[in-house]
Amino acid sequence: MIKLQTPVFKKIEEQAQSMQDCISFSQGALRVGGVPGRIREYAQEILKTDKADYYVNGLGIMPLRQEIAENLQKKYGTTINPEHVFVTHGGIGGLNTICLALLNAGDEVILPAPTYPVYQNVIKASKAIPVFVDASFTSVYENGANEWVFDFDRVKSAVTSKTKMIIIPNPSNPAGMSLGKNDVLAIKEFCESNKIYFVSDEVYEHFVFEGEFYSATPLVAKSEYVLRVGSFSKNFSMSGWRVGFVVSPAHMMSTFSAIQSATICCPAAISQYAAIYALGHPELMDEQIAIVKLDRELAYNGLQPLVKQGILSVAYPKSGFYLFVKTSEKDCSEMVMDILHKAKVALAPGKDFGPFSTDFFRLCYARDPKLVQEGIDRLCNYFKERY
Amino acid sequence: MIKLQTPVFKKIEEQAQSMQDCISFSQGALRVGGVPGRIREYAQEILKTDKADYYVNGLGIMPLRQEIAENLQKKYGTTINPEHVFVTHGGIGGLNTICLALLNAGDEVILPAPTYPVYQNVIKASKAIPVFVDASFTSVYENGANEWVFDFDRVKSAVTSKTKMIIIPNPSNPAGMSLGKNDVLAIKEFCESNKIYFVSDEVYEHFVFEGEFYSATPLVAKSEYVLRVGSFSKNFSMSGWRVGFVVSPAHMMSTFSAIQSATICCPAAISQYAAIYALGHPELMDEQIAIVKLDRELAYNGLQPLVKQGILSVAYPKSGFYLFVKTSEKDCSEMVMDILHKAKVALAPGKDFGPFSTDFFRLCYARDPKLVQEGIDRLCNYFKERY
Repeated sequence: MIKLQTPVFKKIEEQAQSMQDCISFSQGALRVGGVPGRIREYAQEILKTDKADYYVNGLGIMPLRQEIAENLQKKYGTTINPEHVFVTHGGIGGLNTICLALLNAGDEVILPAPTYPVYQNVIKASKAIPVFVDASFTSVYENGANEWVFDFDRVKSAVTSKTKMIIIPNPSNPAGMSLGKNDVLAIKEFCESNKIYFVSDEVYEHFVFEGEFYSATPLVAKSEYVLRVGSFSKNFSMSGWRVGFVVSPAHMMSTFSAIQSATICCPAAISQYAAIYALGHPELMDEQIAIVKLDRELAYNGLQPLVKQGILSVAYPKSGFYLFVKTSEKDCSEMVMDILHKAKVALAPGKDFGPFSTDFFRLCYARDPKLVQEGIDRLCNYFKERY
Repeated sequence: MIKLQTPVFKKIEEQAQSMQDCISFSQGALRVGGVPGRIREYAQEILKTDKADYYVNGLGIMPLRQEIAENLQKKYGTTINPEHVFVTHGGIGGLNTICLALLNAGDEVILPAPTYPVYQNVIKASKAIPVFVDASFTSVYENGANEWVFDFDRVKSAVTSKTKMIIIPNPSNPAGMSLGKNDVLAIKEFCESNKIYFVSDEVYEHFVFEGEFYSATPLVAKSEYVLRVGSFSKNFSMSGWRVGFVVSPAHMMSTFSAIQSATICCPAAISQYAAIYALGHPELMDEQIAIVKLDRELAYNGLQPLVKQGILSVAYPKSGFYLFVKTSEKDCSEMVMDILHKAKVALAPGKDFGPFSTDFFRLCYARDPKLVQEGIDRLCNYFKERY
């Protein structure tokens, strides 16, 4: 039987949901109003017909592939056509299809850390080997501000003859930073010349508030080694619907088709219709994105008293919806459990995000602002009592 | 990149759907009225709330796991509890989770043939090796009747030190037969003593019209080597909704949980609610099952003139919703394409079902009876002109 490590935050999230009056910043889900009502109403209309009853194409229904391609063209000014796009069972489903199709047993996949906890299990499910590289770190500047920096040279030095893929979340989960054009082009060029697949996981693309962000979308048509993952879970709150997509070189499509047919048959049909409607109405999410932006201020500013006392340190998140917070514990996992039980606030321990961040915790602030305020207050009280 | 063979019938089905006035017996989907309206109405009610918006547990929502367990208890008189049951992205999704969790690279999986075309790709996606065994054959009896026979001794003789699993569709797709208690117990005992997993794929369990059928469900709680797959795609027509389930030894559940979290995150939430409603209303399917039973007579009897002329031979299907028909061509794939274009009837060529049945074609008769009648008439005309 395969050996996989279930991320600790999943267990914490479960506990949080079974507790009374617990505020959960643990799971990385957008919870600021749910799926916009009009998307659900559209799905109800579809369910009055038999449109979503039967199997559909393993790569997704063509109208959705077309809508995604047009959307990407408008947003990133590139000539993506539906032959480059397939629909997946969420962003995770896309990564799984990519890994099952492109990795052989024993291949190595580089994960610049801190990184999204599930990647390592996706890779192991494909019988390949995740290799964590300590590529991001917090630099303390003269004015006391912290900033995440991505050091691609460290990634390069981890490449071996077995390296087959590099997966990078851009914008980052959990670091709240994103990579700009120079970084992304450098990664693409390095990967191409070393025949390594570069998978750019851009599920937080709609949550870039400041700083540079460069989508790998325009590079896909120009390279045999670039793939780009997207999702409807973050930008439209549709995490329970399970719809995502992959933009990939066209020549891989028949293999992805065979893999999806063999592993999921097809993504759920009703979810795909809902996704078409969502893409046609991006304004439905503007309000929620604005709430997340407000949440960011509440969460970041709320922790500043602890930062000033030297209890915690945290970089201001320019993108995504997380704070990745450094504690003074070497491994803060026990403290995270203590916070869950004493302060009734659920967090994700840093060890979920790779071996170099055990002193950190992740806080997902994409919640109702009242909950963010109350949760941060509880954290402040907890730390005041502790130190 | 992984090399997979896309079943020919999938391409034929696509062509059929793009043709005018083509009758498709190609894809193995129940098409006799669609998802019962009340199931879709229930889903619409759920969509008026935010119940299905967010991520749910990777093993499925507990009310559905409970409902499935209770249902199996009632049907098969066994003490299955929800700790033995998890929800999957259709039957295929269940097989994929099982294979990713239990198979190592290079393991062998025995497929008694003829068998369901997608199994081999599920196995290959797990980096394991499908081994086809010619275990079913048509016996011609004195009265001229044909019958499928399952010969487990042939399976036994294919076992090597690398054999890790045997997957058997019971009732069979495509053979229209099912295995009774003696066969199933013999397989279980052999597998246990050889430490081989026995996966009983029972997605056609509601389509047993005659003959013995023994579900492996009661064996799961008694063995560490028996797993059983079920689906809502066949019995409730919900193929586009993607809900299935697996009954497995309880000690495997944490591994399956980790695999599902890594590969699909969770099955689509709205589909799971629809499935709960469906399970509570089995009467909704009785009408459709009755239509399929009528279809069986139309299809089987309709081909008899060709059988009597010695052009085709076919066993009377006791279960499932297929005829698996023997032609006089060594490989009838070209003829199947000729039938598609000349007679405008879509079939599945026998080579999709393993290397020993290239002379056969599969005909799915789970269609509107008028279409079955018209399609069979077209086939009769085609063969009369050909021979």
